[in-house]
Amino acid sequence: LEGDALGSELAFYGLLKKLGKHATIVNEDALPYGYDFLPGKENIKKFKNNLKKQLNFDCFVALDCSDLRRTGEVYRINTDAKPILNIDHHLSNQWFGDVNWVEPHASSCSEMIYKLYKKVRLPLDRDTAILLYVGILTDTGSFHYPNTTSFTHKAVSELLKYNLDIHQIYKNIYENIPFSDMKLLSKILPQIKRCVSGKIAWFQIGEGVLKNKKLSFDLTEHILGFARAIKDVEVVALFKENLGVKDQIRVNLRSQAKVDVNKIASFFGGGGHRTASGATVHGKIDQVRRKVLAKIRESLR
Amino acid sequence: LEGDALGSELAFYGLLKKLGKHATIVNEDALPYGYDFLPGKENIKKFKNNLKKQLNFDCFVALDCSDLRRTGEVYRINTDAKPILNIDHHLSNQWFGDVNWVEPHASSCSEMIYKLYKKVRLPLDRDTAILLYVGILTDTGSFHYPNTTSFTHKAVSELLKYNLDIHQIYKNIYENIPFSDMKLLSKILPQIKRCVSGKIAWFQIGEGVLKNKKLSFDLTEHILGFARAIKDVEVVALFKENLGVKDQIRVNLRSQAKVDVNKIASFFGGGGHRTASGATVHGKIDQVRRKVLAKIRESLR
Repeated sequence: LEGDALGSELAFYGLLKKLGKHATIVNEDALPYGYDFLPGKENIKKFKNNLKKQLNFDCFVALDCSDLRRTGEVYRINTDAKPILNIDHHLSNQWFGDVNWVEPHASSCSEMIYKLYKKVRLPLDRDTAILLYVGILTDTGSFHYPNTTSFTHKAVSELLKYNLDIHQIYKNIYENIPFSDMKLLSKILPQIKRCVSGKIAWFQIGEGVLKNKKLSFDLTEHILGFARAIKDVEVVALFKENLGVKDQIRVNLRSQAKVDVNKIASFFGGGGHRTASGATVHGKIDQVRRKVLAKIRESLR
Repeated sequence: LEGDALGSELAFYGLLKKLGKHATIVNEDALPYGYDFLPGKENIKKFKNNLKKQLNFDCFVALDCSDLRRTGEVYRINTDAKPILNIDHHLSNQWFGDVNWVEPHASSCSEMIYKLYKKVRLPLDRDTAILLYVGILTDTGSFHYPNTTSFTHKAVSELLKYNLDIHQIYKNIYENIPFSDMKLLSKILPQIKRCVSGKIAWFQIGEGVLKNKKLSFDLTEHILGFARAIKDVEVVALFKENLGVKDQIRVNLRSQAKVDVNKIASFFGGGGHRTASGATVHGKIDQVRRKVLAKIRESLR
């Protein structure tokens, strides 16, 4: 559950309300760290099995989901097989809906909801502008990923007319790292290794390094982002022994566009995007690392 | 010499050329690391003392300079006291020109030059769009500093119509860290300390840590940026023994808006901006650190 999923679902919810519709937002995951400031977050219900009985609806809408499984267990509330509306921007979208509105060239689902507000001629308001801004900000990596277009900036230009505190929003999401994470990071960074003339950078994190501390999603992103910022690095790989599970290695991969790490992760039973993917692989960490690095090496030829 | 100074001077140079004017760009500093890709960079002349004799001009233009000294030695070529045109966006601008075009609410000097292209109705082209984009990108910290406005995004929306490779531009400037810098960083980060309930984060770097390696401008920025991203941190301070100069300590300060570190740096004989400043202080590193931290502590009350 990330910024764009949250921003777009809350903004779409607001649009439905303005049109006089009843709607319920259901998420499997809790609100992630740093997103407490989102206006309307109290309207998000956490998925529970008995929720099916309580909800009565005519349409099931999935936002920012390339396939139904991305909703987690939430799709199970649609036991009566009501029509599914699929609103998404992933190229890999499976067109699982009865109506599929898929725009692979949109930077984010939030950008699509912005367009929808324009299309149905509903006025924006400050809260909606915050939500859409958060979605676009996070899915474009603060406007630097290649999915950022002229239209993206045009949309944001309008959103900023609602007097948003963009510095505070950025701080909440990106400059809010717990000190304990920072200490862990400073233990992991010195262990960086390189191969293939510096085109691959990798980290190997044994159970001992973490000492029962969980490597958070954000921290993993920081480590990967850091390594990717090194000159000449094309691919970053992170190998981590899963806590408490013997011989299970989590592999995270990031690429600078050239190498398709989705293919590599898929080979090992995982998946993701061209530039960001992951897999959970069975084996000893040294073995798994050697196999994955060999595969990356191949794709760099 | 940073992205906005370079982008705005090269784009302004292009504008003058299009208007049929002769112009020469003079900089004291060499092109910084990562900016090799800038279109037209070969038009920048490096300042030399004998340059005065070679140049014959009617107007001296300063771009992105809050006062004339920010040009380094370059202002010395104006020995004949020709009229000065001062184009700048710093609030602290000294209005040193005969004509002063100062817009403190513009995100960057490049944004002002964009406006100038509109005003004189000159068409943009791809090279100019790249230059203006680089200036805006770097001075807004990829569109997240508070100086980023609705107009900033509107301008960028037009610039991106020229088919810019924004991913490559970002990579050149921000994801181009030498591996040796990364290794040095991973030695320095673990030495982070905090005080005042985590509101101040600081680093002390003795000569021994660097072992005659220079702490580059970019690396210093990375260290400071990293510490500023920690939850609750309001001020970051970096104390560094200057290589080869006894009892000379370089102090770099960064703030999250609340504390005015320009005031603190000024107190110690330095200066800068509200959120980014520095000073060179005489003394033993432990002494200097204690004094500066005490001053920051005061301003946090």
